[in-house]
Amino acid sequence: MHKGRLEAFSDGVIAILITIMVLELHVPRGADLSALRSLLPHFLTYALSFVFLGIYWNNHHHMLQAAHHVDGRILWANMHLLFWLSLVPFGTAWLGENRLAPLPVAVYGVILLFAGLAYYLLSRLLIARHGAESPLARAVGGDAKGLGSLALYALAIALAYYLPWASCALYVVVAVIWLVPDRRIERVLGT
Amino acid sequence: MHKGRLEAFSDGVIAILITIMVLELHVPRGADLSALRSLLPHFLTYALSFVFLGIYWNNHHHMLQAAHHVDGRILWANMHLLFWLSLVPFGTAWLGENRLAPLPVAVYGVILLFAGLAYYLLSRLLIARHGAESPLARAVGGDAKGLGSLALYALAIALAYYLPWASCALYVVVAVIWLVPDRRIERVLGT
Amino acid sequence: MHKGRLEAFSDGVIAILITIMVLELHVPRGADLSALRSLLPHFLTYALSFVFLGIYWNNHHHMLQAAHHVDGRILWANMHLLFWLSLVPFGTAWLGENRLAPLPVAVYGVILLFAGLAYYLLSRLLIARHGAESPLARAVGGDAKGLGSLALYALAIALAYYLPWASCALYVVVAVIWLVPDRRIERVLGT
Amino acid sequence: MHKGRLEAFSDGVIAILITIMVLELHVPRGADLSALRSLLPHFLTYALSFVFLGIYWNNHHHMLQAAHHVDGRILWANMHLLFWLSLVPFGTAWLGENRLAPLPVAVYGVILLFAGLAYYLLSRLLIARHGAESPLARAVGGDAKGLGSLALYALAIALAYYLPWASCALYVVVAVIWLVPDRRIERVLGT
Repeated sequence: MHKGRLEAFSDGVIAILITIMVLELHVPRGADLSALRSLLPHFLTYALSFVFLGIYWNNHHHMLQAAHHVDGRILWANMHLLFWLSLVPFGTAWLGENRLAPLPVAVYGVILLFAGLAYYLLSRLLIARHGAESPLARAVGGDAKGLGSLALYALAIALAYYLPWASCALYVVVAVIWLVPDRRIERVLGT
Repeated sequence: MHKGRLEAFSDGVIAILITIMVLELHVPRGADLSALRSLLPHFLTYALSFVFLGIYWNNHHHMLQAAHHVDGRILWANMHLLFWLSLVPFGTAWLGENRLAPLPVAVYGVILLFAGLAYYLLSRLLIARHGAESPLARAVGGDAKGLGSLALYALAIALAYYLPWASCALYVVVAVIWLVPDRRIERVLGT
Repeated sequence: MHKGRLEAFSDGVIAILITIMVLELHVPRGADLSALRSLLPHFLTYALSFVFLGIYWNNHHHMLQAAHHVDGRILWANMHLLFWLSLVPFGTAWLGENRLAPLPVAVYGVILLFAGLAYYLLSRLLIARHGAESPLARAVGGDAKGLGSLALYALAIALAYYLPWASCALYVVVAVIWLVPDRRIERVLGT
Repeated sequence: MHKGRLEAFSDGVIAILITIMVLELHVPRGADLSALRSLLPHFLTYALSFVFLGIYWNNHHHMLQAAHHVDGRILWANMHLLFWLSLVPFGTAWLGENRLAPLPVAVYGVILLFAGLAYYLLSRLLIARHGAESPLARAVGGDAKGLGSLALYALAIALAYYLPWASCALYVVVAVIWLVPDRRIERVLGT
């Protein structure tokens, strides 16, 4: 089974997700600075979610490039990842409208956590398919960065009721950690 | 005629459908648990429709992989399938807003039934084009699973006015049956 | 310049247009038959526009398959076609909400007319690029069907203020004429 | 690293952006000429933004065609460009609703300015990757047209509070300048 259509479909879904989020940047009523300022929390959560989806696309791109075989289980693991990513626009809009209210902050983290788990699961299935000695396996490795991100998401969710701004700060921290694309795979493949 | 653009266009449409459904997950008014709980029926129907569209993409992917030739009739049979799939977001949103009201439950089933019929028609046209001895024909076979799904949809529609929850249970049953990707084709192709 | 990205971009835009039209099938308030019936004009215009966009995709697919070279002017002629096609969802929604009101009926025809003109212009530019003896030129030929459609659109627009239902009937007639994919090109290419 | 998926993803995002803008062409209440006329400013800003996104797609297409290598930094520079382009539908809708109000006119220019800067940055990274003697570098050159556009955007932003119509005229001027596709690259590649 060729990976081409899997990549194309994932690209399509992520491109649409990253784009329809902007529909939640509702045009403000007025045309003055206060109208624009009221958009600021929406804009900041939009930018954060754009970065997260960009990171997923980037890492997905890198991981699939090292992959050669996909099968039915991998197709579904990928669909499972796309399901959680598809909830990002919802989480973004709810967070943007309620600023630092605890529940939207926590739900945003839950969506990121499940997307992270789905990505981890997908990477494990791909490694199992390609063998522990494959370039893919060596490139992804134990995925300390992925597991660390999951721990930070869990911490952010736990903190959301007490220190929602700290949770948001943790989301930003994870984004910054990942903003550097997955050089591990680039290194192993020597591209 | 190459099948590449047919696959790409179908991927595009399904990717968009699976994604714009999330726009119907309207951001709730409040930021508390009751606001989130009011989204539950929407979320469940969203997840069910996501799985259905995922199944169609998966099976379409498998079937087209075994195909080598497409012609004008097959292009239109494919467009016909996409038409019924394009109504899934509408059916999902109406069902999500009216929980177990009979008509939305029935209409959801009608959309799935026609999509299933359109897929069956597409598979027959592809088999007719490739010959009864082609790998595609052997892989798809008599398509008992496809025909059985159509019967279950019809049963669910008939039940919608009396036992709408039973209809919904039948939809879930069909989804679970298909969640296993089409191993028949994988087996025959030996991929 | 390769035609691949031109095809991919056009596929993407048409796939999105054909899909976002369904967002105008707003979920009705109630859950009974009268709620569903109120959707009927929207559904019929949706189906008609779906067929029109499907026809464009189909013919575009066929024409580009016979093409080998694209240049800057062809890229812009294609963009110009996509611009008019992008107005189809607007025309569809306005027509669906106002049934047989003259102006929306006429505007729908104007959009189809300009899309048809843009398609004709694109085909002429492609023929000029490939030469009058090219398979593309022989396949498209004088394009009587295309020019006839333009005449029917113009007639429908002229009739819209007096016999709006006749205009709509003419739109359906054009759709039926084109529903048969462009066998001329298939014939010449021998596919 | 192959540039194919980068092109496909960018195509997807731009195709979606260019298309969802039409969702802001809200169906007017009535069905008469005054209803249609009230849409005129929306339609004009829609057409202008369509042209701008078309220009970006066209130039992106040309530049990437001359490119052979992409790396992580280029992926992110591309994502950064897509971020600013993704704000075009918002800027378009706000401008369309407020005609010549100074702030929306200025914000529209700011979005275009940042998109232009992001494109310039992407082109510099691509040139740095391919070498100053590469066909890409010779084709893009010093990019006087790109830098001139940035200056015109900045001028338009500065003028927005005093002569908003002049700012809009400047946006149109930049669009017209770019409407001619990037012949420099076509020339060097000899396509």
